[in-house]
Amino acid sequence: MSFEEFTPLNEKSLVDYIKSTPALSSKIGADKSDDDLVIKEVGDGNLNFVFIVVGSSGSLVIKQALPYIRCIGESWPMTKERAYFEATTLRKHGNLSPDHVPEVYHFDRTMALIGMRYLEPPHIILRKGLIAGIEYPFLADHMSDYMAKTLFFTSLLYHDTTEHRRAVTEFCGNVELCRLTEQVVFSDPYRVSTFNRWTSPYLDDDAKAVREDSALKLEIAELKSMFCERAQALIHGDLHTGSVMVTQDSTQVIDPEFSFYGPMGFDIGAYLGNLILAFFAQDGHATQENDRKEYKQWILRTIEQTWNLFNKRFIALWDQNKDGPGEAYLADIYNNTEVLKFVQENYMRNLLHDSLGFGAAKMIRRIVGVAHVEDFESIEEDKRRAICERSALEFAKMLLKERRKFKSIGEVVSAIQQQS
Amino acid sequence: MSFEEFTPLNEKSLVDYIKSTPALSSKIGADKSDDDLVIKEVGDGNLNFVFIVVGSSGSLVIKQALPYIRCIGESWPMTKERAYFEATTLRKHGNLSPDHVPEVYHFDRTMALIGMRYLEPPHIILRKGLIAGIEYPFLADHMSDYMAKTLFFTSLLYHDTTEHRRAVTEFCGNVELCRLTEQVVFSDPYRVSTFNRWTSPYLDDDAKAVREDSALKLEIAELKSMFCERAQALIHGDLHTGSVMVTQDSTQVIDPEFSFYGPMGFDIGAYLGNLILAFFAQDGHATQENDRKEYKQWILRTIEQTWNLFNKRFIALWDQNKDGPGEAYLADIYNNTEVLKFVQENYMRNLLHDSLGFGAAKMIRRIVGVAHVEDFESIEEDKRRAICERSALEFAKMLLKERRKFKSIGEVVSAIQQQS
Repeated sequence: MSFEEFTPLNEKSLVDYIKSTPALSSKIGADKSDDDLVIKEVGDGNLNFVFIVVGSSGSLVIKQALPYIRCIGESWPMTKERAYFEATTLRKHGNLSPDHVPEVYHFDRTMALIGMRYLEPPHIILRKGLIAGIEYPFLADHMSDYMAKTLFFTSLLYHDTTEHRRAVTEFCGNVELCRLTEQVVFSDPYRVSTFNRWTSPYLDDDAKAVREDSALKLEIAELKSMFCERAQALIHGDLHTGSVMVTQDSTQVIDPEFSFYGPMGFDIGAYLGNLILAFFAQDGHATQENDRKEYKQWILRTIEQTWNLFNKRFIALWDQNKDGPGEAYLADIYNNTEVLKFVQENYMRNLLHDSLGFGAAKMIRRIVGVAHVEDFESIEEDKRRAICERSALEFAKMLLKERRKFKSIGEVVSAIQQQS
Repeated sequence: MSFEEFTPLNEKSLVDYIKSTPALSSKIGADKSDDDLVIKEVGDGNLNFVFIVVGSSGSLVIKQALPYIRCIGESWPMTKERAYFEATTLRKHGNLSPDHVPEVYHFDRTMALIGMRYLEPPHIILRKGLIAGIEYPFLADHMSDYMAKTLFFTSLLYHDTTEHRRAVTEFCGNVELCRLTEQVVFSDPYRVSTFNRWTSPYLDDDAKAVREDSALKLEIAELKSMFCERAQALIHGDLHTGSVMVTQDSTQVIDPEFSFYGPMGFDIGAYLGNLILAFFAQDGHATQENDRKEYKQWILRTIEQTWNLFNKRFIALWDQNKDGPGEAYLADIYNNTEVLKFVQENYMRNLLHDSLGFGAAKMIRRIVGVAHVEDFESIEEDKRRAICERSALEFAKMLLKERRKFKSIGEVVSAIQQQS
């Protein structure tokens, strides 16, 4: 079987493909033995096929992008090139944060296929862990490290402008995935759209209120412009709690197919926003045995620690590299501790406000938009779910409008507590 | 003579080139007659060779970029590709504002050569007219029209994001010219640099004060990030009063070789900032016969009219095209007059503040940076020049730090009057 042209694979044809690809077969012993490979398709995401392949001496994951959105079908075409951007970013972010990004063994642009490390059990999707009420002691440490390194080293704090514009040009190619985000995050929730859905009838008025809130529409337009126009760093582009796999001591960030050069706050906000959604969903998962109060406090501590550790690490990278190749803040202009501290504080305050804005937008779209989150969807009783969703929605609307008033993440956490 | 490869032209070889290029020879009758062409090299700018060519039935200008900065020489290499970006933008902006951009007859990428309309006398460089104290009754009308059309129609108010990212990608190629601006506008004035010069000894302390002003350095860093990261519209990139040629009823914008997808405010600010420089230079050109007071008022009226007309026309284009292809403010979200007015006011307020910031930065660099302006340089007496420059510098520093306090251009004009 030849793979010179794009061929969607299934369990059977995948074996031929692996056997004909040394970078893959050598990883799992398929090059030396004819033992059967155990292959299982597990793609529960919306876009691609994902196969777990276990051989005699190892395992790996094969991810293949099809020329359409998988969960909708050929009626919603989507470029296979997203696999190229996913592989490129996995490698780039993997070099910067190797402990928190699965290694890429092989990429085949024609087949839109990536072969990478299999994150074996007990790794689970973080979102599922948050629903189950599991604490992850290293989560804040790992995620702040991942975000600090991937965002700092791909920004003008570390790039010169020649390298930055070269990289921006390359990722302008991921425009189709960006347009999907522009539609489902920045547009549809604020207008009547056949794609929108919400817990009806309970949230009918709430969804209508979003569509009629001029102040909200003003803020979302500014964030949309920043998303479309500002090439600040190579961002993951879809950094929600479904793009993170965890164990008690491992945190791995996956699925960067939406990556492009955009605002840093979009990644930080997506991640923190989804932690806040997890917080507001907890009351819907409370039982007689476990009222989830303690777990809610753990989530709030994780939100606070994640930002504060990120802030500390990002500034530390900045200080370490202030005489490096970056051209945003030249060392002979920002040439004393006082002026450097002054501009760093301003930079981080702006980044916090961007993150809060994007986080709020990501929350709103998960409640009144097309794609919802399991945190709420797994609350079976409509009324109970709607109460949780409404708290989250009200908080997100306030956060989007008033984000610039918050001086610290601690103030945000206090506001979450007041809302719940 | 073959022009298959890049060949710097002189008066003699240019004749061969024109004769071998129908798009040029037909414009000036060189295709039908062997009469001598009258050719004169007039490039007074810093970067290129510019020839005026007059034939039996017409005239044209030939502009050729050399692989280095002309006024410095081969020690400062500079890509010839700038001619491609200049020709592309002349055509693009020319389509949008045909009355105010010279027509391009021919472009030869290999030769880095543009053949375009010759702006015959009495056209003169606007800066020279401002030094001479000449009023131009249509200047505000023409420049506001040019800026409104070129900036609106190349932004996401008129582009969809696919077209926008395609265009952004193309102009990321003009990175060398952007780097020149990043150095001379956003970096050198704020550090010790062999390129910097100022009216010494009078402004020694003033230049030092710029290099030691933390608040100024904070603001210039934010503007530099916006310049390097924000792809808002196809901007001219060097829109000072030396890039505009005028007669009493004609206004033509030339030399867009620094063009790229950047912040709109950089163009508006460069132009208004250079008008403010012209204002502060007038006292240095006052004579017994003409104290220039009336002319200073004309300049202030022109500044105010330019922004207010721009604002009016930009919003009118927005209203006319609100159901068009633009994706920044979708019509079914910004679906009533009230919310549209609300977001337009916010957009224009932000654009005014961006413009004031960039205008201030362009003023500062012309007083303590590498390339100064004839408005001041033509004031022969050092002390007298320094007094004018200091007023302009003090005003620009205040403007850069406090730009967000100004609610209208009228308030800016009042502040200029207080400073002078």
